[in-house]
This record gives sequence, structure tokens and C-alpha cells, in this order.
Amino acid sequence: MSTVDASTVDSAVGTVERPTADPDLSRLSLNQKTTNSWGVAQAVDGCVRAGVPAIGLWREPVQEIGLEQAHKLVRDAGLRVSSLCRGGFLTAPEPSARRRALDDNRLAIDEAATLGAPCLVLVVGGLPEGSRDLPAARALVADALAELAPYAGERGVRLALEPLHPMYCADRAVLSTLAQALDLAEAYPVEQVGVVVDTFHLWWDPAVFEQIRRAGDRIASFQVCDFNLPIPADALLARGMMGDGVIDFRPFREAVDATGYTGDIEVEIFNADVWAADPDEVIATMIRRYANLVL
Amino acid sequence: MSTVDASTVDSAVGTVERPTADPDLSRLSLNQKTTNSWGVAQAVDGCVRAGVPAIGLWREPVQEIGLEQAHKLVRDAGLRVSSLCRGGFLTAPEPSARRRALDDNRLAIDEAATLGAPCLVLVVGGLPEGSRDLPAARALVADALAELAPYAGERGVRLALEPLHPMYCADRAVLSTLAQALDLAEAYPVEQVGVVVDTFHLWWDPAVFEQIRRAGDRIASFQVCDFNLPIPADALLARGMMGDGVIDFRPFREAVDATGYTGDIEVEIFNADVWAADPDEVIATMIRRYANLVL
Repeated sequence: MSTVDASTVDSAVGTVERPTADPDLSRLSLNQKTTNSWGVAQAVDGCVRAGVPAIGLWREPVQEIGLEQAHKLVRDAGLRVSSLCRGGFLTAPEPSARRRALDDNRLAIDEAATLGAPCLVLVVGGLPEGSRDLPAARALVADALAELAPYAGERGVRLALEPLHPMYCADRAVLSTLAQALDLAEAYPVEQVGVVVDTFHLWWDPAVFEQIRRAGDRIASFQVCDFNLPIPADALLARGMMGDGVIDFRPFREAVDATGYTGDIEVEIFNADVWAADPDEVIATMIRRYANLVL
Repeated sequence: MSTVDASTVDSAVGTVERPTADPDLSRLSLNQKTTNSWGVAQAVDGCVRAGVPAIGLWREPVQEIGLEQAHKLVRDAGLRVSSLCRGGFLTAPEPSARRRALDDNRLAIDEAATLGAPCLVLVVGGLPEGSRDLPAARALVADALAELAPYAGERGVRLALEPLHPMYCADRAVLSTLAQALDLAEAYPVEQVGVVVDTFHLWWDPAVFEQIRRAGDRIASFQVCDFNLPIPADALLARGMMGDGVIDFRPFREAVDATGYTGDIEVEIFNADVWAADPDEVIATMIRRYANLVL
């Protein structure tokens, strides 16, 4: 397994781990899941200490300290909020569960607006319990989007549809490719519905660069992390620090830039070893790897 | 985890596990990996006992008893060979490793011809050790195919390109979608290069039914098994008995049939619980599930 201890990490990626005198961090964002043991206040402080100018927030830690307090912390620190994670889980077919899901997504949109987050990331949900009807689950997502998109648009928040790696199709997201996300998004004004380009989820897709070109100004969020092997027992934790896995990042960054995207590049890592490491060290490694492997 | 014990299995799938008086098994094939503890002779006997008319063979157990002996066993039992698994692993860039891989694939083609297998399944290989260059690995596969396709065609064996689930892209197959497999195959005569439609690998793909239509007479093999959750520690063993996972099989079978495919429907399961069960019981369950969920 990977480690984020600086010395072993250096040898792991060899010459790409060269020190960078003055890396341009102006577009780097720490998704707070990467420093999972920290609350919002600690993550904000960590970004400031390290010179990271933006942060991707999660609803649960924001709710722990309260929405207004989280907003104040981020604003006083001079950080941008690159995204709020996450809404979605829109595939429950029962009317009451569906109403609860839509209500919760409207609340998440309100939270994103208060926090000044330009987009709310949507993980759309997997197959309903006991169901094998993938087309029906996808139709439920499309229907929910029709309800949520205008609501988001009115509040200046963009819904960011995130296609997830196909290994999560059954239990997390029936949205698996960028093409599929764009098919959904293109029914709405570009400021209402965009897509997330996440290297972990999309790196394997033979059509991905063609679809990034197609995405154009639909790209609402660009997230990077590596795909590690072997896939751990909890498949959600297969995300790795850039350089520890199999992904070639620069072609993705260049393709996303070529669409005209000038937004933040968010590093979001779910990984037991990363989470067990000292978060300041994780941020230091993230900065080096970002400079050497993504820029 | 799933079990193939007949009684629990019955309750697991509820009403779909109804007894079928006289199921049509004429297109059913046992891929011998499903009864992994059996050698060729036992698997052939097991098929005969259960009335399964076809078998998918693997090279290693065939080599254990010798090619001619395997051929004699299958022929004397009156079974069809639906496929030989497998060739491929064509992504090593070093000239000597590449030469060895091509030589081994030519040998596998010869074996398929001797066994009367209509196709040799190709698992194309993952990223070379230490490489992150996915386009280069894919180019190596395309180059190897140019060398192997005419050789296979001359021997009456069809190469069957198998797109694997994207979770195996790094370590098993840089070929991940049916569209990608067809893009490769269509450069060759239809009798030289076809594709494998395997429900486990393709069920999640939003474009799969469109691509099955496109495939037409390129379908060289149709394999079924379920996608089980959670993904086990050894991700290769996530394949499950039909009915134990999340796949809706009938739409796949109907889509494949609609192309004009009248060949065998092969059940190939890698699963620790299935492998630990009594193989005759596994075949009995396979027949019931095939009748109730696939036909």
C-alpha cells in the first residue's frame, strides 16, 4: 500500500519528485476529505499555513460547526470554496424517501449558496435496495435533476454531476461515464448543471479525452487523485495520492485547460493510509505531487 | 457473500427460482472455471450428467492432461467446445517479452484449432509494470492483433476480444468497453476477430445495448455471470452465480439474440464460495438460474 511519509514517497515516484522552487499553487484546492481527521477550522488553518488558496468543503463537518461559522472561517482566512460535497442519492423510488432526498438536496443547494461554493457535487446514487433495474434508476436521477436544476440556478449554485468509476455503479452512482453525465447535463442551461472531471473515476475511459473536449464550459469541477492497486477491502478507499497509482495526470490537466476551464484543481483522497498520516505532511506531499505531476 | 447451496439460493432469488419443467439447455455451456476444482475429465462428465451440451475450456487444465486427450474426452462425450480461455497479455513493451507473448498466443490459437473451439478469448493485458502510459499499452494491443488475426484466420479460429470491467484496466485489460473492442475488431474480417459480451464486465455501461446492436455478427462469445457486492479482497472473485448479484440478464440475452447470435451462452464464475461448493450442485444451480433468469 501507499504511504505519504515524505521520504518513501520521494523514492516511490523517482525523478518526478524533484523539489520545485516556486510552484504555482493559485489553482490548488484541498478537498477536506483528504485531511479527514480535521474539522473545518483545522483544514482552513492547514490551507493557510501551506499557502493553498482554496478548499472543497463537505456538508457533515460544515454542519458540525454550523454553516455561518464555517462560512466565516473560510472568508476570514481569504480562501475560496471550490465546491461543496455532496448532494445526490436520488434513486430511491418510494415517494416518501424520494421527497426526503429532494428536500435534502435543496438544503444542500442552500448551504452551497451560503458558503459561496460555485457548485454542489452530486453523487447520484446506486440501484435501490433489491432492484436490478438500472434504466429505472437512471430515469429517477434524470427526473430529480429536472426538479433541482432550476432551484439551484435561482440560487447561483451549479449542480455538478459526478460520474463515478463503474465499480460503484450498483451501490453509489448509476452515472458512470462523462458522456452519460453530459447527456444529462446538456438538457439544462450551462450555469445550472455541469459535470465533475475526476481522474480517479475516469482515467480508464477510452473516450474520456473526446468527452472532455465535448464538455467545454460544462466542467464545474476538476478533481485529481490516483487510482491505487490493489483495490482495498473497502473499495471506496482505493483513491491515492498522485504518484502512488497508475494515472498520468498531465494529459488530463491539459485537456481540461484546453476547454477554457480556469477553475480550481481539487485534490480529493479517500485512503486509510493518507487519513492516518499527519495532515500537514499530507498537504506538503500533495503540494509537491501537484507541482510535479499535475502542473 | 453468496452461496450456491440450493436451499439458501432458492430463497435468495425468491419467485424467480421456480422449478422449470423442461428448460431448453441447448445453448448452455459450462465454462470450466465455474467448477474450478475439477479437471477436464471431471468437468466433461459433470456436463454429461447434467445434460449441459457445451463446455468452455481453459488452457492450463487442458495442458495438464494433454491437448489430444482433452480433445478426445470432449469429442467422445459429444460436447461442443464453446471457447478456449485464454490468450492475450499483449502489453509487455520489451522485445523479448513481446516475442514470447506472441509465440504463446500463436500456440493458444493452435490449441483452439485442435480442440475445435470456435474462438480464443483474449484478455489483452494491463499497464506494463511501472508504466502509466495507457495509450501506449493500447497501441501495443492493436499492433499484436495485426500480427495474430491472420494467423488465427488461417486456422479457423476467431480471436474474441474481451472488454473487462474498468476496475481491471490497470492490471488485466486496457480494453474496457464494447465500443473500444469493436473499434479494434472492425479493422479485420469478421471471421478473424470478434468480441466477447460478458454481462459481468459490461452491465454498468450506459452504451452497452447500443454497442451490442452495433456488434452484430462480431459477437464471438456470450458469457453470463452476476456482479456481486461487496467487491471481495481479490477483485477477480467478484463474479457471482446469476441471481446473487445486481444484473438483469434477460435484456442482455435478448439484445444478443437480436443481433442474430445463436451460439452458446457460457456461464463463467470466479468466486471463492462457488469454488468451495460441490461442483455437481453448482451445475444444478447454474441450470436453474439459467432457465429462470437468462432464458
